[in-house]
Amino acid sequence: MTSAFLEAAARLLGPKGLTTDSHALAPWLTDWRGRYTGKALALASPASTAEVSALVRLCAEHQVPIVPQGGNSGMSGGATPFDSGTELLLSLRRMNAISSLDRAAQTVVCEAGVILQTLHETAAREGLRFPLSLGGKGSATIGGLVSTNAGGTQVLRHGSMRALVLGLQGVLADGSILDQLVPLKKDNRGFDLKQVLIGSEGTLGIVTAATLRLVPDIAGRCVMWAGCATLDDARALLVMAQDMAADLLEGFEVLPRHSLEAVLAYLPDARSPLAAPYEWHALIEFVAGDVSTAARLPEIAEHLLSQAFERGLIADATIAASEDQAERLWLIRETISPAERAIGPAMQHDISVPVEAMPAFVDAAVPRLEADWPGTTAVCFGHLGDGNVHFHVIAPPGADRAVWEAGDGKAISAQVHDMVTQWGGSISAEHGIGRLKRDELARLGDPVALSTMRAIKHALDPQGLLNPGKLV
Amino acid sequence: MTSAFLEAAARLLGPKGLTTDSHALAPWLTDWRGRYTGKALALASPASTAEVSALVRLCAEHQVPIVPQGGNSGMSGGATPFDSGTELLLSLRRMNAISSLDRAAQTVVCEAGVILQTLHETAAREGLRFPLSLGGKGSATIGGLVSTNAGGTQVLRHGSMRALVLGLQGVLADGSILDQLVPLKKDNRGFDLKQVLIGSEGTLGIVTAATLRLVPDIAGRCVMWAGCATLDDARALLVMAQDMAADLLEGFEVLPRHSLEAVLAYLPDARSPLAAPYEWHALIEFVAGDVSTAARLPEIAEHLLSQAFERGLIADATIAASEDQAERLWLIRETISPAERAIGPAMQHDISVPVEAMPAFVDAAVPRLEADWPGTTAVCFGHLGDGNVHFHVIAPPGADRAVWEAGDGKAISAQVHDMVTQWGGSISAEHGIGRLKRDELARLGDPVALSTMRAIKHALDPQGLLNPGKLV
Repeated sequence: MTSAFLEAAARLLGPKGLTTDSHALAPWLTDWRGRYTGKALALASPASTAEVSALVRLCAEHQVPIVPQGGNSGMSGGATPFDSGTELLLSLRRMNAISSLDRAAQTVVCEAGVILQTLHETAAREGLRFPLSLGGKGSATIGGLVSTNAGGTQVLRHGSMRALVLGLQGVLADGSILDQLVPLKKDNRGFDLKQVLIGSEGTLGIVTAATLRLVPDIAGRCVMWAGCATLDDARALLVMAQDMAADLLEGFEVLPRHSLEAVLAYLPDARSPLAAPYEWHALIEFVAGDVSTAARLPEIAEHLLSQAFERGLIADATIAASEDQAERLWLIRETISPAERAIGPAMQHDISVPVEAMPAFVDAAVPRLEADWPGTTAVCFGHLGDGNVHFHVIAPPGADRAVWEAGDGKAISAQVHDMVTQWGGSISAEHGIGRLKRDELARLGDPVALSTMRAIKHALDPQGLLNPGKLV
Repeated sequence: MTSAFLEAAARLLGPKGLTTDSHALAPWLTDWRGRYTGKALALASPASTAEVSALVRLCAEHQVPIVPQGGNSGMSGGATPFDSGTELLLSLRRMNAISSLDRAAQTVVCEAGVILQTLHETAAREGLRFPLSLGGKGSATIGGLVSTNAGGTQVLRHGSMRALVLGLQGVLADGSILDQLVPLKKDNRGFDLKQVLIGSEGTLGIVTAATLRLVPDIAGRCVMWAGCATLDDARALLVMAQDMAADLLEGFEVLPRHSLEAVLAYLPDARSPLAAPYEWHALIEFVAGDVSTAARLPEIAEHLLSQAFERGLIADATIAASEDQAERLWLIRETISPAERAIGPAMQHDISVPVEAMPAFVDAAVPRLEADWPGTTAVCFGHLGDGNVHFHVIAPPGADRAVWEAGDGKAISAQVHDMVTQWGGSISAEHGIGRLKRDELARLGDPVALSTMRAIKHALDPQGLLNPGKLV
C-alpha cells in the first residue's frame, strides 16, 4: 500500500517534488523550539495548487495522513509529524510566487510558500507595506501565517492575520480546490468559508494562496518609552493614547522591571532608556501614512506624555530622536524572550484576557504563582494593547531543566491556564494549539465550542487525514 | 404532536412568550418588501438566552422547524416562514437589553433584540458611536444584523458587521449555548466559531447576544460632492482620497445622472448640488474622531478636490459648508431607492466585484443589458468604495409590473447574476441569500463552496430545523 502510494506520488510530483531521503527530511522533522521530533513517510513539495489537489486526492485514496508545514517556525508543534512514520510531510515552500500586486487597490496575491520577509520587501518596493511582522519573518510563510492566524506587534492597529486576508485558496480533504482569491470587500453569499480555514492549523484544509491587504508605507513614526509605577497606570496611558490618536497607534507593548534588567544583562551594549528604574515600562509607537501627519507625530507624542505626566500615570519618558534610537528601543522589546531564557528554565505561556482586565489579572496571578511555587519568578510582558501577554514562570535558581519542566513546570502551566480560563481569557492568544496545547484545550475549553469544532472537523475531513492529532 | 409541543412551549415561555393569535402573528408573516407571506405554528418570544436554549431543545425533540426573526427588515426574505404553517417563528425582540457598555474599552454587550437606533443613541450618550447604519435602523436588531453580516454606507472604513463583532453568544441546533461574549482581541484556541455564525442567516444557530466594537464619537465631518465624466474618474478620485487620507475616509458613494434626476423629480424641495449636469457624481465623507484633525478636514477636502480637478478627474465640486448642507447631500443619496422605485417596476440587484474592476464592469454590463432588453434603463449606484453597487434595471415604460417581473425581469436578473459571476463578483454583496437568491446561489455558486457549506450545515444542524429552505 505504502509503496504504491509513494510510487504514485513520485509520478505525480516528479523528482523535485518528493523525497524520502533522510538528510533532506531531517531539518523539517523537529519543530523550531526543539520540543518535538517526529518521522515522516516522505516529504512532498508540490509546485502548484493543482499538484497539491492531486496529491491530497491520492492521500485520501490511500488513507495517508498529511502534515502541512510552512516555514517550520511555529511555536506549538503544529507542523511536526508524530513518531509513527506513516504521515506525509507536505511543504509548500516551492510555491513561492507573488502572483500579483495591485498598487492602487493595495492588495497582493501570494502563494502559500512566500516568506514573510520577501513580502515585506516586495511591498516596500511599491511604496506599500504588509502590516504584520514577527520574530520568524525570515522563515515564516504566508500559508503558515494564515493557517495559524498569526499575530505580532502590529495587531493593535491592523489586526491579526485574519484581518489582513481578503481572499483565500485552499485544498480540502477530498482534494477539491476552494478558490476564493478574488478580493470582494462585501460578499454575503452564505457562510464565510475563508474564516473557517484561517486559524484551523491545517486540520480543515491546506492553504495554497491568499490575497492580502497592504497599507501605505510608513511616512514617519515616533517611538516613545515611558516608566510607570503600575501596570494599571500603563493601561490608563494606553486608553489615553487611543483617545488621542487611535488611528496612529501602531504598537503598545509593556515590560516589567525584571525583563528590562534581563535584557540589559544579556545585550552587551544596551542601556536603560530612562535614568531611574521603574516597575513597568511602556513602549509606544505612532505611525503615520502621510507626510503631513508624520510631521506632527513628535508634537502629538509630547502632548500625550505631558498629559500622562500631569495625571501621574508616568514618572519619566523619552521620545526617540532618531530612527536609530527608535530601533534601539524596539531591540530591547525584541530581546526579552532570549534574555529571559538565558536566565534558566522557564514555562512560557501565551495568554490573553480582555485588555481592561489585564492589570488586575497580572496583579492577582503573579504573586499567587510565586507564593505557590517558592523560588520561581513570574514575568509578564508583551502586547498590552491586545490584552495579550507572554507569561513566563522562571524556575528556582539551580533547578534541573528536564526534571523541573516535567514536574513543577507542568503543574505551573496548568495553574496559569486555570487562572486565565477563570478570567474568561485564552490559553493561546497568538501561538495556536498545535500539539503543545491540545490536551489543555480539551481539559479547559468550553465543551460546546469543542463539540462544535469536532463536528466541523468531522464534516470537512471525515477520514481524519489533515494534520491528525493537532488542535482538535 | 403539535399540540403537545405548543403546550410545552407555552409552559416554558409563559403568556408573554408564546402566541398563536393570528392578529399578533400577522405583522411578522410578511417580509419588509412585501415579496413573501407565510404561515407559522406560533410566535415564540423568549425573554432570555436560557429560554431560547430550552425552546430550541424542545423544537429538536418535536422536530419543529424554527424561523428566527430580528426586526423583519431583511431584503431577501430570510426571516419569513414558508406556507406550511409547521414552522415556529422565533422573535428575539423581547431580549432588548444593552447589558453593559465599557467606555474605556469602547465595547458594548447587546442582547439580540436591541434595535440599531437604540444602540446609536446609547453610544452617543457616552461620547461614542457604533459605526454601522442603514435604512432600517429603526427596526433592525443586533441579532439580525449579525446573522446577516449587514453592511451600509460606513463599511469602507469600519467594515461590515463581521468586523464589529468582538464576541458572540448563540444557541445551536441542539439547544446548547455557545458563549463567546468575552471580547478577546487575540484568541487562537481553534476555529473561530463566531465567524461561522456571523452571516449564516440563522441556519447554523440563533444569535442571542453580541459584544460590539464602538469608536469615538465624531468630532467633525466634511461632506463633498463632485461631478465626474466617467465612473473610472470617480474610481481614480477614490484612490486619490485613500492615498491622501485613508484614515478619514468614511464614505465614498457614487450615483449616475439618472439617479440624481430621479431624486430631484421625487423630492419636492431638492436641488442639484452642482450647477451643470454630470454623468457621474461622487459623495465623499471625511470623518475625524479628534478635534484637531476635525479642524483640518476642510483644508484636506479642498486639497483633494483641487488635485482631482487639476488631474481632470472632476469637472466641478462642492464642500458642504454646514451640517445642514451635509445632511441634504446625504438625503439625495438615501432617496435614490424610493425615487427609482417611483419610476416604475425594476429588478434590483445587490452585487459586488473587486473595487478596481467596478468601472469596467458597469461600462460593460449597462449597455449590454439595455441592448438585450430594449426599453429598459440600467442604473448603478452606491458603495463604490466597497466595490458594491445596487444595480437596478427599470422596466420599459408602461410594462405591467407582475407580468414583467415574472417574465423578462426574471431573465434580466439571471443575466445580471451571470455577468457578475463571470467577473468574479458576488450576487449578494450585503443583502444575503435568504429565500430570494437561494436558487441563484445553487445555480451560480462555486460547487466546492456549496458542498462545503452543506457539509457544515449538516454537521451543525443534522435535523435541518434551523431556518430550513433558506440560504443553503
